[in-house]
Amino acid sequence: MTTKSNLEGTVLSGMRPTGDLHIGHFEGVLRNWVELQENYDCFYFVADLHAVTTETDTRQLRRNTLEMVKDWLAFGIDPNKSTIFVQSYVPEHSELAVILERLINIGALERMPTFKAYVEHLAGDRRVKVPVSESSKETRELHGDERLEFIASSEVSTGFLTYPVLQAADILLYNTTHVPVGEDQLPHIELTREIARKFNRQYGELMVVPDALLSEAKRVRGIDGRKMSKSYGNEISPRHTTTEITEKVNRILTYRKRLTDLGDPFECPVYDLQKIFNKKEDLEILQDCRNASIRCYDCKMKLPDKISAVYEEYRAKRATISDDDVMQILVAGNLKARKVTSQKLDETKRFMLMNYLEEGRK
Amino acid sequence: MTTKSNLEGTVLSGMRPTGDLHIGHFEGVLRNWVELQENYDCFYFVADLHAVTTETDTRQLRRNTLEMVKDWLAFGIDPNKSTIFVQSYVPEHSELAVILERLINIGALERMPTFKAYVEHLAGDRRVKVPVSESSKETRELHGDERLEFIASSEVSTGFLTYPVLQAADILLYNTTHVPVGEDQLPHIELTREIARKFNRQYGELMVVPDALLSEAKRVRGIDGRKMSKSYGNEISPRHTTTEITEKVNRILTYRKRLTDLGDPFECPVYDLQKIFNKKEDLEILQDCRNASIRCYDCKMKLPDKISAVYEEYRAKRATISDDDVMQILVAGNLKARKVTSQKLDETKRFMLMNYLEEGRK
Repeated sequence: MTTKSNLEGTVLSGMRPTGDLHIGHFEGVLRNWVELQENYDCFYFVADLHAVTTETDTRQLRRNTLEMVKDWLAFGIDPNKSTIFVQSYVPEHSELAVILERLINIGALERMPTFKAYVEHLAGDRRVKVPVSESSKETRELHGDERLEFIASSEVSTGFLTYPVLQAADILLYNTTHVPVGEDQLPHIELTREIARKFNRQYGELMVVPDALLSEAKRVRGIDGRKMSKSYGNEISPRHTTTEITEKVNRILTYRKRLTDLGDPFECPVYDLQKIFNKKEDLEILQDCRNASIRCYDCKMKLPDKISAVYEEYRAKRATISDDDVMQILVAGNLKARKVTSQKLDETKRFMLMNYLEEGRK
Repeated sequence: MTTKSNLEGTVLSGMRPTGDLHIGHFEGVLRNWVELQENYDCFYFVADLHAVTTETDTRQLRRNTLEMVKDWLAFGIDPNKSTIFVQSYVPEHSELAVILERLINIGALERMPTFKAYVEHLAGDRRVKVPVSESSKETRELHGDERLEFIASSEVSTGFLTYPVLQAADILLYNTTHVPVGEDQLPHIELTREIARKFNRQYGELMVVPDALLSEAKRVRGIDGRKMSKSYGNEISPRHTTTEITEKVNRILTYRKRLTDLGDPFECPVYDLQKIFNKKEDLEILQDCRNASIRCYDCKMKLPDKISAVYEEYRAKRATISDDDVMQILVAGNLKARKVTSQKLDETKRFMLMNYLEEGRK
């Protein structure tokens, strides 16, 4: 491991291995991870237990894990600078989570916006009817909170309710000072801070209260304007050839019907990409779009070469990384992670006076 | 370890180290544990993570753990026959619990009678008022389920909601075939069976679906007729001298006001004790009490010598067991437990296809 002078703190961040990474992941998360390596002691992990929270079908997990870590390595996450590991191989994550669940009330988790949003998404516009009483065949319709609570109870796994506690354990185990997050994750960091303070009040000052490292929101929408996701088929991949990128970019919906329509670049997914991949012409295009002095097609066609060029080095490097390389790096990373976590969990138990057998263990 | 022929299965049971054990624990649970050793491969554990669920103040945990295990050993739990260990020293309990939380919906836990009873106990007859809306100062009173849900959210820890999942992990890790329980714990065994079947359906037949081993309900009420508990000061302890037992038994409330009042032995805490400690005269006393041909005082005074005698051997043996003895037995037991659990968790991950690094681990 290289020694970094003037470290600004410890960073922890994880990614769920749910499928192939697209340019949204690369530009929104990974580029930040690569940069953070220079100034922080970084822990980057495969959040496989979190992946199982939303998808209990695990048949793709191994493949997704290996491919995802290949992407990390090829794009510049350096195992000599950062600790790269798999969550489920570091048992202390689960052990601390079980302890921390005892320190936080159910309501704090029910109030998480991600929980509420998920329940609302599940609920959709379905109508929910329940028997008036246990023995009755007559039914009544549920509304508002009552409807959502019914759906949460009957359709949401306990793991989905408690995963922010597992996240808190992820963070606190490494004495993390900074957690890079998007705005939607801020309530989870706040919960982690609350849990840390609660632990410290009850058992003594052990847990580092982390700060959120809010990264500039780089919006990368899919080519249909929705959230970019492989499952929608609207993604642009850094593994695409220039031809494939051209084809994808060409299909982006731009809203302008005629050349004379004035554009609104901040509403346009193409402009998302110009801001990231074409910084030199960025402001010029902004003007031209608003003035309707550039055709959407011409605007789009500035992109494919540039996007492709950004990932050229990545693609070349990725082709050289084998499954075995990844596994060796993860095995070594798991060991490095466990050095930190086993010590932290020992301290946790010592602070909780649960190290009954310390003498016996020697 | 002695070899037992004709084993009928594997038993697992735990006890929370919440304070000194009284004769209710000895006769209601421990005597059964001692007997089960002859025909089952038994795992008996200090359920310290469960203890933290209801009491996050851990200052007495170490002392309570050592004293409780001394009681086990002195009463006949034999480390050469059974595996005796501490839950928090076997990380696989937490690891499996976190996985299983992903397989069970929130509602299944909210419906546990222990959860509902605890929330009702917390709620008592308190009135709960909430603002009519977020911005309003006007309030409305909550009733029924809405009131209980409000109290659960704001006052019950997540750990209390999820502890039946930790119990399921406790049980499933050891391929337990039989779980000795009282009637109140039957829903938890049913939940464990449901989780086991769910795992088996999704990932393959790995988990042994356990059966409840319903022990004859030996009711031992405290001397005031309430549940026996040291915190009520109504307990009889196997560590009491005969004089102390006499004093306690004498104070038992018996409901009969005059000698001529006919007794109802099944309503009387003294008769609970006669059934356990005075089996020879049991039926005679039953008649005499119903006929009012025995005075309560005389009935009571048949007990102290008998109770004391039952625990004579226990008391003598207990005085010879040191903290160090207990710690050595627990360290050895933890190792034995982990041999079983680490293999079971490896299999669990293999069935879930989460053993990504098996080759790397060699």
